[in-house]
Amino acid sequence: MENFTFYSPTYFAFGKDTENQAGQLVKKFGGTKVLIHYGGGSVIRSGLLDRVKKSLENENIPYIELGGVKPNPRSGLVYEGIELCRKEGVDFILAVGGGSSIDSSKAIAAGVVYDGDFWDFYSGKPIENALPVGTVLTISAAGSEGSPDSVITKEEGMFKRGASGDAIRPKFSILNPALTMTLPAYQTACGVTDIMAHLYERYLTNTKEVEVTDRLIEALLLTMKKEGARAVFEPENYDARANVMWAGMMGHNHSCGVGRSQDWRSHCIEHELSALYDCAHGAGLAIVMPAVFRYSLKHDVMRFAQVAVRVWGCEMNFQDPEKTALEGIDAFQKFLISIGMPSTFADIGAKEEDIPKLVDVLCHGDGRDGTIYGFVDVNEEDCTNIYKMML
Amino acid sequence: MENFTFYSPTYFAFGKDTENQAGQLVKKFGGTKVLIHYGGGSVIRSGLLDRVKKSLENENIPYIELGGVKPNPRSGLVYEGIELCRKEGVDFILAVGGGSSIDSSKAIAAGVVYDGDFWDFYSGKPIENALPVGTVLTISAAGSEGSPDSVITKEEGMFKRGASGDAIRPKFSILNPALTMTLPAYQTACGVTDIMAHLYERYLTNTKEVEVTDRLIEALLLTMKKEGARAVFEPENYDARANVMWAGMMGHNHSCGVGRSQDWRSHCIEHELSALYDCAHGAGLAIVMPAVFRYSLKHDVMRFAQVAVRVWGCEMNFQDPEKTALEGIDAFQKFLISIGMPSTFADIGAKEEDIPKLVDVLCHGDGRDGTIYGFVDVNEEDCTNIYKMML
Repeated sequence: MENFTFYSPTYFAFGKDTENQAGQLVKKFGGTKVLIHYGGGSVIRSGLLDRVKKSLENENIPYIELGGVKPNPRSGLVYEGIELCRKEGVDFILAVGGGSSIDSSKAIAAGVVYDGDFWDFYSGKPIENALPVGTVLTISAAGSEGSPDSVITKEEGMFKRGASGDAIRPKFSILNPALTMTLPAYQTACGVTDIMAHLYERYLTNTKEVEVTDRLIEALLLTMKKEGARAVFEPENYDARANVMWAGMMGHNHSCGVGRSQDWRSHCIEHELSALYDCAHGAGLAIVMPAVFRYSLKHDVMRFAQVAVRVWGCEMNFQDPEKTALEGIDAFQKFLISIGMPSTFADIGAKEEDIPKLVDVLCHGDGRDGTIYGFVDVNEEDCTNIYKMML
Repeated sequence: MENFTFYSPTYFAFGKDTENQAGQLVKKFGGTKVLIHYGGGSVIRSGLLDRVKKSLENENIPYIELGGVKPNPRSGLVYEGIELCRKEGVDFILAVGGGSSIDSSKAIAAGVVYDGDFWDFYSGKPIENALPVGTVLTISAAGSEGSPDSVITKEEGMFKRGASGDAIRPKFSILNPALTMTLPAYQTACGVTDIMAHLYERYLTNTKEVEVTDRLIEALLLTMKKEGARAVFEPENYDARANVMWAGMMGHNHSCGVGRSQDWRSHCIEHELSALYDCAHGAGLAIVMPAVFRYSLKHDVMRFAQVAVRVWGCEMNFQDPEKTALEGIDAFQKFLISIGMPSTFADIGAKEEDIPKLVDVLCHGDGRDGTIYGFVDVNEEDCTNIYKMML
């Protein structure tokens, strides 16, 4: 195991009706003027936004609003939010929504207290200061409610890039599984896929002797296999939603990924798909992951065999472990298809003729050096091959 | 799943040589005058105490020392520590050692800022304020490095009782697995047993639909089964020590026990053994747990069968699940014996004729009402039967 630091100081209020604690929690963490940042229709229609506002009013905390966050959140709205916060003297950002609203809130929070262009943070500059952020989560997927990470798409060039820093970890996150019960099956399944991707990205490691984190990741994958499917097919099953929600947080607050190298190539390779075609991130991942895994299989057959046996219930083929390894990837892909996820380029409207463009932006966009680093480093030719495996 | 809150803001510095960061971390968390609180011989002999002092000196942080913490730490030294801190104007407590040093430090930290008798907190009063505490861990066992809990023995009456509160969660914990490599096999095995006990106490729940926490607990039990044994038999295996150390923290910072009722009867029943005979807490637990489990088996056969199959590799007996359940308890006890733990009263010098006294203090000491609450509530007769099963 490698040396590491771990720090996860987010306060979680988990369970029914917890959104009514928003005002008290903003007060607890020092907010006196709030920007409520959200997407659109559903948080308004469901009455959630009103309940959150009521909770702030009960604590006499003034607020302003900025809606309109889109999936794969854009830099334009971040610039707008930064301006607005400065003008209005906002000192706390409250995200109401899923990963997109939270990531956009984190970007605004970092940008408000920074003199330069906030995009610097998404080009590699570490985030050291930010306004405090709180969240009211409505989708189990991104894990942003417990992570120091944010992903934003820059409109010029359609680069989708990530930034990170303890300063943008939410001070609190309100997790009410009931808020996710109205999510359509497709969006639920996209979230399930994203959570499983966070787990696989950590699982694919070159660090030896990491039994504790291997086992924790497998535990969360097993949970998603059972409860993720149940959340898709029984949308109003509170317990299934609750198990998925905690698994999503635990899978991405880094506690199960400490002390080991990680992969994250699937996320990089997917980001170009959702940037170009504006598909759901989870749907893109469902197509990308099996291709990346099959392409990387020979790098460490036993690692893929281990997850096949321990998570997917495959029987170990001691004569030919590669068969077991492949069987595990097949089982994962079948699972994704069974919950309604796509499996080919055509399913998300992606086109073979775009592959050169995808590979170019992936490998050279925004200052990249031609290689995507991870479990196995891959170059332009590899990435072309990987995209072709998705046809 | 039940509603819950989760808050674990401890900063962990994990890995080789991390004890040299003690001074920087005390400074980061605002300490300007430190009490270093520790046990005895080994932290001095190994040079660890000197390295920690050096690290404080490098940051120009003045310190005083209080050694002499014993296993099953006593109230007398806590009173002494509180006096000393007040006299010397200490504003940060740095525990160097295992659970005993950490728990004693937490008690001092809470007592210094409290006008009454610190024992009030160990009689049920919640801890709301305390001096900040940091830790340099030398034994993987108690999990106190990441928990809001502390257990102290009151000399008058030999009551062993716990207190809890977010205020006594360590601000930082330094976890260097190499510091545990000189621990004798017996102490290592006691720690392994304690960690597994924390997991079983959470596993035995009456809450339904808790797949995510079930799976996480099983993941940590599986880790301990492999890496715990390896740490005992290959004491200088850094990776085994590292896996055990992170499993011990994760198993007790509550992330795998949220939203579910828990048991903790084995800890209560054991506390009377270590209070009366001053045996190691882990050794006491090794004797107590199999008895408590067998006594509670019929309350939820399928729960015991589940852990038997998922952790102990037993084959499910679909005709007679109770057989599988019992087989799992037997396998756990065999494991404990295999790492050198005791299995009977005689092994720790406990005596049958003391049972009435043990039961009386257990069920009525320090204001208890005659019942020990948990997975199954047990009365005096039950506790007598359980102690007798250990003969």
